[in-house]
Amino acid sequence: MTEHTDTNRVVIFDTTLRDGEQSPGATMTHDEKLEIAEMLDEMGVDIIEAGFPIASEGDFEAVSDIARQTRNAVICGLARAQFKDIDRCWEAVRHARRPRIHTFIGTSPLHRAIPNLDMDQMAERIHETVTHARNLCDNVQWSPMDATRTEHDYLCRVVEIAIKAGATTINIPDTVGYTAPRESADLIRMLIERVPGADEVIFATHCHNDLGMATANALAAVEAGARQIECTINGLGERAGNTALEEVVMALKVRHDIMPYTTAVDTTRIMGISRRVAAVSGFPVQFNKAIVGKNAFAHESGIHQDGMLKNSETFEIMRPQDVGLAGTSLPLGKHSGRAALRAKLTDLGYDVADNQLIDVFVRFKALADRKKEVYDDDLVALMTDQASGEGLMQVKFLRVICGTEAPQSADLILTIDGTDHQVTAQGDGPVDATFRAVRQIFPHSARLALYQVHAVTEGTDAQATVSVRLEEDGKIVTGQSSDTDTVVASAKAYVNALNNLVVRRAKTKPDEVATSA
Amino acid sequence: MTEHTDTNRVVIFDTTLRDGEQSPGATMTHDEKLEIAEMLDEMGVDIIEAGFPIASEGDFEAVSDIARQTRNAVICGLARAQFKDIDRCWEAVRHARRPRIHTFIGTSPLHRAIPNLDMDQMAERIHETVTHARNLCDNVQWSPMDATRTEHDYLCRVVEIAIKAGATTINIPDTVGYTAPRESADLIRMLIERVPGADEVIFATHCHNDLGMATANALAAVEAGARQIECTINGLGERAGNTALEEVVMALKVRHDIMPYTTAVDTTRIMGISRRVAAVSGFPVQFNKAIVGKNAFAHESGIHQDGMLKNSETFEIMRPQDVGLAGTSLPLGKHSGRAALRAKLTDLGYDVADNQLIDVFVRFKALADRKKEVYDDDLVALMTDQASGEGLMQVKFLRVICGTEAPQSADLILTIDGTDHQVTAQGDGPVDATFRAVRQIFPHSARLALYQVHAVTEGTDAQATVSVRLEEDGKIVTGQSSDTDTVVASAKAYVNALNNLVVRRAKTKPDEVATSA
Repeated sequence: MTEHTDTNRVVIFDTTLRDGEQSPGATMTHDEKLEIAEMLDEMGVDIIEAGFPIASEGDFEAVSDIARQTRNAVICGLARAQFKDIDRCWEAVRHARRPRIHTFIGTSPLHRAIPNLDMDQMAERIHETVTHARNLCDNVQWSPMDATRTEHDYLCRVVEIAIKAGATTINIPDTVGYTAPRESADLIRMLIERVPGADEVIFATHCHNDLGMATANALAAVEAGARQIECTINGLGERAGNTALEEVVMALKVRHDIMPYTTAVDTTRIMGISRRVAAVSGFPVQFNKAIVGKNAFAHESGIHQDGMLKNSETFEIMRPQDVGLAGTSLPLGKHSGRAALRAKLTDLGYDVADNQLIDVFVRFKALADRKKEVYDDDLVALMTDQASGEGLMQVKFLRVICGTEAPQSADLILTIDGTDHQVTAQGDGPVDATFRAVRQIFPHSARLALYQVHAVTEGTDAQATVSVRLEEDGKIVTGQSSDTDTVVASAKAYVNALNNLVVRRAKTKPDEVATSA
Repeated sequence: MTEHTDTNRVVIFDTTLRDGEQSPGATMTHDEKLEIAEMLDEMGVDIIEAGFPIASEGDFEAVSDIARQTRNAVICGLARAQFKDIDRCWEAVRHARRPRIHTFIGTSPLHRAIPNLDMDQMAERIHETVTHARNLCDNVQWSPMDATRTEHDYLCRVVEIAIKAGATTINIPDTVGYTAPRESADLIRMLIERVPGADEVIFATHCHNDLGMATANALAAVEAGARQIECTINGLGERAGNTALEEVVMALKVRHDIMPYTTAVDTTRIMGISRRVAAVSGFPVQFNKAIVGKNAFAHESGIHQDGMLKNSETFEIMRPQDVGLAGTSLPLGKHSGRAALRAKLTDLGYDVADNQLIDVFVRFKALADRKKEVYDDDLVALMTDQASGEGLMQVKFLRVICGTEAPQSADLILTIDGTDHQVTAQGDGPVDATFRAVRQIFPHSARLALYQVHAVTEGTDAQATVSVRLEEDGKIVTGQSSDTDTVVASAKAYVNALNNLVVRRAKTKPDEVATSA
């Protein structure tokens, strides 16, 4: 992003679809990735790391399709320090209007031991691979993985090599979430001062939150001269996750007085994408999460601090509107029209086509007939269910008898390829009975890795969103569904997960690799 | 804590029971507060802020009883800058072996406007109230609320007044979560340098996480000379919460090389208390929460980074054992004996008496008969249900018919004061039908403020824990229950909440106030 002439402009590099999606269990479908990428592009993220093309056929296709669809953002793919990785990455990102290759190698003593390269051999490898990437693409990012635990002299040496080989962005990852703000700043400052050519590249900071300091570490790096922050929506990512996009962006906005740096992010889109990423990843946001938690804005929770809250600024440093929370307190009802529904969906971050709106409106009316007030979260649940209704199998009928007298029983009809299959099964609880019924009709060896209920909005007549994650031979799939009946939502979510599993089984996966940068 | 002669010893001040419990919806029962206080004391927390005695009769009793029961920690109560608050606080904490009064007033321009005091009048008020507190108790903490937005000159002036009036600890709150690490450090350094008598007191840091930097801000303050960190378990607290105890404690441990400060906290008790606070507050911890999230330790999630994970240190900076996660992968089964159960419960942070163990063991065996493997979270659910089984009303029988064909119906028998009451109700979903049945038997005007299901462990035959929160005339009560049948757990949780409401109704509440420091 060397075209930015404003020296205080900070580039936002989002890696929700790569480092975030790598989080165990956060796997997203192809369509979900495309949708999130479009939202990132629309909110003004500068660079989208769309995946790790050589990791799987699915990753390759996602990066390629995101590269084709994206209007503004630079599209980046990850590649290890190997020619075949870099070639594969280029094949995927080359379709972008503005492609970037991101290649990395672990440079700390612990990581050097893995490929068993000595310092000189690794330096040579870095020279060769960055040169190779630069011959394919004029926008090349290079990362010394585990930089914060790499010897300073060696780090300077390899960064210099990468710059000379043509890297345009040098990313300094704190791969294990180990650093602290002063140290993070000192490292960037040291590199900028010592490495010849440092003034010709952008330095980036990539932090993990293992000690709870990712946001502060990223901002400290910026104060020391870094001009690219790598981050994810909701801080999604392996272990304790990555720097949260919403936190760094809002901190720079709110504390512009002491951190005079700007980003291009439209902060009013934060809540919409946060909700969507939580839904598709199956990683709920905790109530007290900074910026995007349910309780982040005190007044949202309905508490009144009697005699104290005479001025909203007394306890508020941000307005809820700044992060896209405006109007959440106005639920829709049965008299709301199509325009109101569309406006609300747009607020929530959904861009619905006209024909999709017709479908959604029918379902919205059905819900509004049953519920007095339809809250934002009801609509998110409705959209989630909308997105996951397709597939080989559908739940046609379910009747469950449960309660204090065991066993519970489920009477289920599943339609598979147009044919109805009926069974009755008993189990320990209504959901167990239902899932047993599904397994009797469609036997499979996948392990249930997660079963999760998000009760949404207020009241028991609200929709519940159920997430089901299945694991089979290392493949992880997720299904979600929403219904006012938790048991029905559970059945549908399980069947959706199985539909996704069937699709995954059909795809060949030539070269499954994993990484962490 | 002036007895600490080690100049690098940092005092841990836990305010889970005061600032954490103030979080909208996180209200805990009396017994839960006593239990959490005991766990905090046992894990080596130096000071427990047990509540805000004048806020309600319940707060007063909780602080008094915690003061009486606590063996080691200093017990602190909060008080506004008013004699009646301070007197009431002293009445509660005086029972402690080591009591502390914590009094505060908002010193920033926005907060000075609320009681409509000018700078001189407020200074006089501070002098009077701190003197009054010190005449009652030789351990007095004073806080200028919203210190980070208070004019530096005025802050120095009032801190000096508080020290001269006898305050032994000066706490500097970042009430709105506004500061950043460098600024946090500069503020403490400025106070220590400029205020006469600063070397005779302990400076404390109290941060909020609105911009995601509470942990880094607290540690920066320590580097600048603060020697008390105010924090909560899981970062519980209003809006985005407070500094998380587990994060600051583990950061000081893991990065002792650059932050050579020590605490007295036994870190192996972190997971146990984290789980317990999540359960009693009804605030689940997100998967990617630092230190205590389900995914915080990558290897826990079962992912294998093929070809890379040859050395666990490659991606690990802490061992799971350090935070009390050891042995979680070994579930109990039907052949496990009483000693194994007790050992596991102790690991999980439960200190069970012999007669309680007998009850729990019976219920454990019943569960183990139905489930092949009983996981840690199953036991937590079992203990949660154990703790909430008492009350006016009990669920005697429940039979629910639900599924895709509406309406769903619930046949319920509630025992109230020994008499059975039976109804059949219809509703939109099994839980709605069940709750309607409860309301028919026991009509009430309380609003359902939250309905939440935590599906625990793996598999649908695992226990689900349901939290129900009711609100009536500003009183908030919570009920929880666990069962392998979510619908049964929901019924019991609702009935538990109603039982708690009946108890709350009976108590008079002379002087309900609210605050935030």
